[in-house]
Amino acid sequence: MSDSVKYLLDETRIPKHWYNLVADLPSPPPPVLHPGTLKPVGPDDLAPLFPMSLIMQEVSRDREIEIPEPVRDVYRQWRPSPLFRARRLEKVLQTPARIYYKYEGVSPVGSHKPNTAVAQAFYNREAGVRKITTETGAGQWGSSLAFAGALFGIEVLVFMVRVSYNQKPYRRIFMETFGARCVASPSMETNYGRSVLAHTPDSNGSLGIAISEAVEVAASRDDTKYALGSVLNHVLLHQTVIGQEAIAQMEMANDYPDIIVGCTGGGSNFAGIAFPFIGAGLRGGRKARIIAVEPAACPSLTRGVYAYDFGDTGRMTPLTKMYTLGSSFMPPGFHAGGLRYHGMAPLVSHLKELGIIEARAPQQVSCFEAGVLFARAEGIVPAPEANHAVKGAIDEAVRCKEEGVSKAILFNLCGHGHFDMQAYQDYFAGTLVDSTYSDAELAMALAGLPSVPD
Amino acid sequence: MSDSVKYLLDETRIPKHWYNLVADLPSPPPPVLHPGTLKPVGPDDLAPLFPMSLIMQEVSRDREIEIPEPVRDVYRQWRPSPLFRARRLEKVLQTPARIYYKYEGVSPVGSHKPNTAVAQAFYNREAGVRKITTETGAGQWGSSLAFAGALFGIEVLVFMVRVSYNQKPYRRIFMETFGARCVASPSMETNYGRSVLAHTPDSNGSLGIAISEAVEVAASRDDTKYALGSVLNHVLLHQTVIGQEAIAQMEMANDYPDIIVGCTGGGSNFAGIAFPFIGAGLRGGRKARIIAVEPAACPSLTRGVYAYDFGDTGRMTPLTKMYTLGSSFMPPGFHAGGLRYHGMAPLVSHLKELGIIEARAPQQVSCFEAGVLFARAEGIVPAPEANHAVKGAIDEAVRCKEEGVSKAILFNLCGHGHFDMQAYQDYFAGTLVDSTYSDAELAMALAGLPSVPD
Repeated sequence: MSDSVKYLLDETRIPKHWYNLVADLPSPPPPVLHPGTLKPVGPDDLAPLFPMSLIMQEVSRDREIEIPEPVRDVYRQWRPSPLFRARRLEKVLQTPARIYYKYEGVSPVGSHKPNTAVAQAFYNREAGVRKITTETGAGQWGSSLAFAGALFGIEVLVFMVRVSYNQKPYRRIFMETFGARCVASPSMETNYGRSVLAHTPDSNGSLGIAISEAVEVAASRDDTKYALGSVLNHVLLHQTVIGQEAIAQMEMANDYPDIIVGCTGGGSNFAGIAFPFIGAGLRGGRKARIIAVEPAACPSLTRGVYAYDFGDTGRMTPLTKMYTLGSSFMPPGFHAGGLRYHGMAPLVSHLKELGIIEARAPQQVSCFEAGVLFARAEGIVPAPEANHAVKGAIDEAVRCKEEGVSKAILFNLCGHGHFDMQAYQDYFAGTLVDSTYSDAELAMALAGLPSVPD
Repeated sequence: MSDSVKYLLDETRIPKHWYNLVADLPSPPPPVLHPGTLKPVGPDDLAPLFPMSLIMQEVSRDREIEIPEPVRDVYRQWRPSPLFRARRLEKVLQTPARIYYKYEGVSPVGSHKPNTAVAQAFYNREAGVRKITTETGAGQWGSSLAFAGALFGIEVLVFMVRVSYNQKPYRRIFMETFGARCVASPSMETNYGRSVLAHTPDSNGSLGIAISEAVEVAASRDDTKYALGSVLNHVLLHQTVIGQEAIAQMEMANDYPDIIVGCTGGGSNFAGIAFPFIGAGLRGGRKARIIAVEPAACPSLTRGVYAYDFGDTGRMTPLTKMYTLGSSFMPPGFHAGGLRYHGMAPLVSHLKELGIIEARAPQQVSCFEAGVLFARAEGIVPAPEANHAVKGAIDEAVRCKEEGVSKAILFNLCGHGHFDMQAYQDYFAGTLVDSTYSDAELAMALAGLPSVPD
């Protein structure tokens, strides 16, 4: 028997449609509200930020949305991504569990993010958009949009959270190599950035601040739109190629996951692996336990509240109902920069509220411990974000051993850690710290939630 | 028609044999000599350094050498690697040429090096070896052996050229994540390292010095062997999986390369792509032009001499006949660390001598220019080493345009540049410098060549 098994689909098996979970939900998620009127937003309200094709996807209730051929053409560079049976990890853990992982690190930027970056760049180009602004934390998303912009001939301007901009110069150069411009946020290029710097000249920045800056630029310039790397329905939609492929690959393996694990920041890679399986279960198929793993340092699903909130710190975005820590929540500078968002995708939040998914929030040191164990067994060094999924999967595999049961565990290894070696260095040096919040501390940012009548 | 086309083989098409070019050569390469007796070395002379199975491969004249199933099993994690038609690059260049590239950056460490690291780790484990020492320049090889060591349960000790150790801490942490130990060379751990430091306390190190240290450790300890990442026949042999797959993939594309391009440091990735095609030509098949691209800063093939020389600075290795700049040659600290070797693989040197291959040596700034052009067109940021192959391929494609002919150009994109962003930063900042040597400068290191009668 093989030590490690790869399940690979040929490129005709790249999904032809994105899967829209909304079509199969028992109830739709609550509407997005205009922050001024508190009425549901219409497509026109979003038109300054997004091309209409993406807005239509955002509100669509169709189960399947066709993937344009030029997008599939770019997907073909790395898709279908491989799904592996982690036999060497199973052996190290001495677990009866069957562990599988879908590996999205094979994309040219090393994560799942290009699945939506390519789609967004395509639709923007179709709409004649010349420039896209966005924000990035760890840099995975900014790199992905830079990559997609280069392929589709669109200028990309990235507001990168200042602490990451300083800690991760190589991510910035990676974006620049693709031709994007990258500025540290808060910046002097926007009214909002200038206002933050006026109050806090040494601000480290945050994803919420960077979103405000990118949105401000897009809203104020005719030739410029905005792109988001997670949270929104259409972004999660684009990631469902992951789970659709995984369903076919699990069939190749003659197996079906009892447990599906993904890490959650904004929610998009988790949605990508989980939504197609959840939909199959909702349509009468076999149900899996679905586990979202978020960082203890930014615990929106496990310790936030389900409420309407802004997506950004500057309070420029529409209001969405989601699990949130409050849009002024400032997570510490822990090393899974891609998971440092105060809120959670409305669709993922809705699933939590419906009891369809569960969530947990381990500390980062235990996640790196899991990641190093994984690297030495399977030969892939995961991104710090992905280590949360690795930790979740290993915990379940260890439980299988304790209970003497063999379950199939599938997790999404959403990216590699090539640009995150500083984090591993800190882990080995013992300088990584865990984060704890008292309930009172968490209540502070929540006190600023907007007031929205039921 | 598709913008970019990937030719992917299923995993049953991973080669079952390595291809040994020696079987098809009109004359064998000159023998390796013992540095004391100047007589050809026998297997026993090499036994302190390598397991006998690898020594037998080193001297084999069999055309095919079977790949053990446990090695193919690990290959399966990323092999067969994709071959791409670079349609977007062709469009940018407005060339009638058909450009193809084989992409070895899909391996877990991001280069072709694991093709041999896995094989070497396997044979060492079979021989009961507990520990392997090696050297590394840029870190690609050290990472690969660290990866392979983790999978086969072998301790790995890497002597990393000090200038790279300091410039590339993330490469070191990458190796440590796989469980290897990495020390800066020259080190205080060997007699040779101490002797270098005694004379030159601030030595930057070199591959030649690091090889001496690794060889010294292996030669003096019973449980420890040595592994080399390039140059030797058996290392080049293991890389032939690249070209064998490429032959099948060019068939899928209904095309055949008129020109094959690879970058050369020690010669292994070049051999990997080129040898199977060269062999097919020698056996009566269609012949391609084969171009080796080396850095102007370390021009062994283009400006070295074909002579017996040591493989290391400490003059501990056997003597091999090769193109060499002299084992005391100290290349400047340019950014393609993997190409900073004073010599060239004996087999590649022999091919140059036989007139079967040609060589050129562009400057590094022009190579980065080619690499950035490639990244923006194809979405992959190449390693600085690979940029030399990109440069060679683009030059040929431009010539096709000038001459109005459509040729098929195949090059080996041997690795991605995720760990090399400092080099790109220097390129964008305009601080990269080109290297020139006068003939007199090059003659200095050559004056120290050992005296070997014809």
